[in-house]
Amino acid sequence: MLKTDQWFTEIFAASGSVFGLEITKKLDEVQSPFQHIELFETTQFGNMMVIDSVIMLSTRDNFLYHEMLSHPVLFTHPNPQQVVIIGGGDCGTLREVLKHPIAQVTQIDIDEQVTRMAEKYFPELCASNNDPRATLKFADGIAFMRDAAPESLDVVIVDSTDPIGPGEGLFNRAFYESCLKALKPGGILVQQSESPLIHMPLLKAMREAMTDAGFAALQTLQFPQMVYPSGWWTCTLARKDAQFDGFRVEAAAQAPFNTEYYNAGIHQAAMALPNFVLREFGLK
Amino acid sequence: MLKTDQWFTEIFAASGSVFGLEITKKLDEVQSPFQHIELFETTQFGNMMVIDSVIMLSTRDNFLYHEMLSHPVLFTHPNPQQVVIIGGGDCGTLREVLKHPIAQVTQIDIDEQVTRMAEKYFPELCASNNDPRATLKFADGIAFMRDAAPESLDVVIVDSTDPIGPGEGLFNRAFYESCLKALKPGGILVQQSESPLIHMPLLKAMREAMTDAGFAALQTLQFPQMVYPSGWWTCTLARKDAQFDGFRVEAAAQAPFNTEYYNAGIHQAAMALPNFVLREFGLK
Repeated sequence: MLKTDQWFTEIFAASGSVFGLEITKKLDEVQSPFQHIELFETTQFGNMMVIDSVIMLSTRDNFLYHEMLSHPVLFTHPNPQQVVIIGGGDCGTLREVLKHPIAQVTQIDIDEQVTRMAEKYFPELCASNNDPRATLKFADGIAFMRDAAPESLDVVIVDSTDPIGPGEGLFNRAFYESCLKALKPGGILVQQSESPLIHMPLLKAMREAMTDAGFAALQTLQFPQMVYPSGWWTCTLARKDAQFDGFRVEAAAQAPFNTEYYNAGIHQAAMALPNFVLREFGLK
Repeated sequence: MLKTDQWFTEIFAASGSVFGLEITKKLDEVQSPFQHIELFETTQFGNMMVIDSVIMLSTRDNFLYHEMLSHPVLFTHPNPQQVVIIGGGDCGTLREVLKHPIAQVTQIDIDEQVTRMAEKYFPELCASNNDPRATLKFADGIAFMRDAAPESLDVVIVDSTDPIGPGEGLFNRAFYESCLKALKPGGILVQQSESPLIHMPLLKAMREAMTDAGFAALQTLQFPQMVYPSGWWTCTLARKDAQFDGFRVEAAAQAPFNTEYYNAGIHQAAMALPNFVLREFGLK
């Protein structure tokens, strides 16, 4: 039986399932203007950040999500130089992006407190925050993309919370139209797109909204992510003006940096979709 | 907060994590000579079987595991005819095996009650049990393999519970030596091999025991499986006398039967291993 003071559990209403980690103590908590942020020490997954009762990341398994939100898109774009991260306040995606020879990356998270907590409890994820190529802004990502100079960006990474609360406006056609306008020809948007097993309606709605906004091609990638509902997650790439034709396999295979999950084979593998997903997408 | 009468939760001690499904009622339970079997109706995952407090399968997501334990090995072997399933009492693996043009498959589960419960609460998994090519035995799989005629089998599928309780003897060198002897040259053993994220010591020990027993080549495949610890699972193929050189891609691509997860692309993808796994296996 669960002794609830030893566990942080999150109920996933959409799937009638629950997941939790055993905790030794609450490390911190803060009510920001936007959300309630809690930090726990777990027995086996290092530290854990929880926002509005939803598990965001743990020390032990965040590499899966952060690597898959950054390396596939950056090895798919032929020459990514100007990168924007919307959300991503824990700085884990930023760290991965900065492993690439990009010119500039701007991270726009609405909530400075997420980054302040990450600096304290996930310092390894913030290790590259002072890279001269990186700019951290704490502002509204929706407004930022609306006001971005047309055709100024190569890659936009949407590393947001779920489509409720502050993240809600990042999952609709208007936002995708802003992204499309801000991308250079051939530019790519990538966004975390929930679980193929339990969020299929949302995943399909995102893909439809991206297409409706005018993106020329979509590619949904799958990967494991233990602390998210079902343990199985996706991100979706959307390309402006052009179809996808593979990725820079050689560059990925010879990447001069270390990763825990990503490699060229894993990238290829992530593009393979199960039959039930192909059927849902109308691809089979 | 969890109201415990609405949830069946399983604590994974090895990872300090907990997973559960919301239940509407307990459907059945039986104490067999070997284990305690419970059946629940869940709100969103159909029926669920629990053995000795460990979640075995749900109606909604068992296709992942059953397809991945059967189709990859059968499309890797050049001409599988004689197949044995050790364990597998819910008959889900058997159903998938019988989609292939094999000559004969024998399933040996120690506990007849697992199959009786599956017939009642997972009838779709038992739909092929009367296929004339299928034989269901309720006996000790360890003894069955020890006594099997040498070089009589093409494929042995070990679809067992975890390496505690009745399943324990299925994860060691002596058992693998029995399997090796019973396989024809080029024959393949496949076994579920736990989570790469949280059971790495066990997975490595299995691979070592398979090698020590004399198997010539190993191949670990990864796939999602929501109701098992971490939601990320593996199976490991071990081949007698020969290296692996891919699989029958064309046959897999043109399979004349339906699957929900498996296809040729997914098979290829399952063989891609993350960097941390490659390092653990000494392959990188």
